[in-house]
Amino acid sequence: MTGAPLVYLDANATTPADPRVVEAMLAALTGLPGNPSSGHAAGREARRAVETARREVAALAGAERPDEIVFTSGGSESNVAAIRAALAARPGRREVLTSAVEHASVDATLDRLAATDGIVVRRLPVDGRGRLDLDAYRAALGPATALVTLMTANNETGTLFPIAGLVPAAHAAGALFHTDAVQAAGRLDLAVAAGGVDMASLSAHKLHGPKGVGALYVRRGTAFSSLITGGGQERGRRAGTENVPGIVGFGVAARLALADGDAGRLARLRDRLEAAILAALPGAIVLGDRDARLVNTACLAFPGSDAEMMLHRLDRAGIAASSGSACAAGGAAPSRVLLAMGLGRLAGSTVRISLSRFNTDADVDRLVEVLPAIAREARIPETAA
Amino acid sequence: MTGAPLVYLDANATTPADPRVVEAMLAALTGLPGNPSSGHAAGREARRAVETARREVAALAGAERPDEIVFTSGGSESNVAAIRAALAARPGRREVLTSAVEHASVDATLDRLAATDGIVVRRLPVDGRGRLDLDAYRAALGPATALVTLMTANNETGTLFPIAGLVPAAHAAGALFHTDAVQAAGRLDLAVAAGGVDMASLSAHKLHGPKGVGALYVRRGTAFSSLITGGGQERGRRAGTENVPGIVGFGVAARLALADGDAGRLARLRDRLEAAILAALPGAIVLGDRDARLVNTACLAFPGSDAEMMLHRLDRAGIAASSGSACAAGGAAPSRVLLAMGLGRLAGSTVRISLSRFNTDADVDRLVEVLPAIAREARIPETAA
Repeated sequence: MTGAPLVYLDANATTPADPRVVEAMLAALTGLPGNPSSGHAAGREARRAVETARREVAALAGAERPDEIVFTSGGSESNVAAIRAALAARPGRREVLTSAVEHASVDATLDRLAATDGIVVRRLPVDGRGRLDLDAYRAALGPATALVTLMTANNETGTLFPIAGLVPAAHAAGALFHTDAVQAAGRLDLAVAAGGVDMASLSAHKLHGPKGVGALYVRRGTAFSSLITGGGQERGRRAGTENVPGIVGFGVAARLALADGDAGRLARLRDRLEAAILAALPGAIVLGDRDARLVNTACLAFPGSDAEMMLHRLDRAGIAASSGSACAAGGAAPSRVLLAMGLGRLAGSTVRISLSRFNTDADVDRLVEVLPAIAREARIPETAA
Repeated sequence: MTGAPLVYLDANATTPADPRVVEAMLAALTGLPGNPSSGHAAGREARRAVETARREVAALAGAERPDEIVFTSGGSESNVAAIRAALAARPGRREVLTSAVEHASVDATLDRLAATDGIVVRRLPVDGRGRLDLDAYRAALGPATALVTLMTANNETGTLFPIAGLVPAAHAAGALFHTDAVQAAGRLDLAVAAGGVDMASLSAHKLHGPKGVGALYVRRGTAFSSLITGGGQERGRRAGTENVPGIVGFGVAARLALADGDAGRLARLRDRLEAAILAALPGAIVLGDRDARLVNTACLAFPGSDAEMMLHRLDRAGIAASSGSACAAGGAAPSRVLLAMGLGRLAGSTVRISLSRFNTDADVDRLVEVLPAIAREARIPETAA
């Protein structure tokens, strides 16, 4: 790949497909031409491949049954579908309880529903580490709460919300519970069945699967109405011809993620990276909840330095990193997540490093080698700051 | 592929991906790991590939500008998004004018909107060839019509609706016009800009592209609100990380379809097939509008024969065909399309043969060799019929 980054450190934006995923997708693209809804041999073979993948994704999610997995086109679709289905399932309730740091596909969807359907959106604040106030959470639940939607892991800081601990109060209030687990899937044990959530969103491309495919876990017995209405695919929960190669790739990616046991290695890489950068740049700050974070995520503020300039120089040095959510990249607006954490002053100075299976000690060495100088070169003049 | 059909004649359900499409997707899967929304080199390269594909799909559709193409996860999503966006764009109007023979993703979506939003759905009847009554169409338009949604080509019979001729009356009534062009794209010249439609749905996998990717043409200046809300992808019209390999594959498939000029060959194959079968089985009937049909589609009724039994025997003989829409296959309900044509009595006796680029004279020869005996063997005993 001409001009490709030598060091890809932007796994929370997307991950490269695993070669074993690509191999399986290639086999599906060439060897499974049928429509899974067709009754002939080509259709039946495609159907079998989809159902194998469903079992693999169910295992990754920790679902009780494969048919609790609905394949979608990705995390955004899963989030939108979950929110709209929950509101349809609780027609007498008009409130959604969420946080101030959710992904755009949750945040913007709730804004839309507030505008078009009069839904009341309650956004819980977070503290300086991105943590919820649990008393505020319980106090906000009530008889009007249709849905609680809270992310398992934050895409920018990696901070984890204690989902399993939050579910019982929501259920006691009669609300459904959905979690956007897109950044968590493949990086920690989701255990959706044990945790008690009613719905959970997953995306293949954050765990070395392909872009364009995701899943929504829908607990057995949860009332569900589809976002994409039409044919009876996915047991009537998501119409449209199944993305057979994408689903096959997702299945393989899920199986590999369950098997790889890479979390300890990533945590060590991430901790070494942070320690080395803090040693070289004592003014740098690690953002997020260091007691409960994704193992792969380092969200680092360099007060006084311009993050966009740093990213540009990293890019020229062959290192891909991010200033936050790729879904908001290119926009001039500061990170909603950092604003909610009361860290708006750092929003223009924060760089997110996110690791995955293919990152090595050499990648960390390379970053640590160039980043301190880049942070110093990117200092904003005092007068302009 | 073990057990694969030797002769695949079910192109209206789905088509095998072209090897050149697979090659381009493989290159994207391995060589374009970035998120198109990321600012670094990997992101920019993925973005360029998506924009190249957008130009290719715009050319296939006959759009005026590439940015009139919104990539989606497929035809069903495109249809749902178009219908919901049109209703949002005409808030004072509560009626949708459609036909009795639309795809499930239009039909079921309108049923849902009737139930949840009180939308009034007017379904125009068709005649025995699947043709619209143009006077009834004009009479049904009125100041309450928000949207006309009519398919370009029927998936079961191949019958074409004269879309460009229908648009002016809809616009004169102040309604938007959407066409489900999923079965038509790549098989006839869509010319969306010249035809004047406001929106048109396309799907890659009907034209030798991958499953899991489609497009919605949205004419410049048409008010549009997204179905999948969230990040600013697709100029705010469809959130979610782009399916880069799928979109790249769609682009190549669109380019190949524009270049291949295969329509004449397919029409000759189809006509030869029909003539040979009618000669061998004088009781067989060609359904649909023989004056305006997709070139690749033969919808054949075998009165007195059981279509499911025929398809089963064809499958055992290595031939994949269909009894109608794959999206409804496996269901016990007779074809809505044939019922609307007043041909319910033939619904259990109808076999759809649909051809594509990879079908040859040998495929037709093989079908013609085995089908007459199969139709005779599948005769329903008079007493049971």
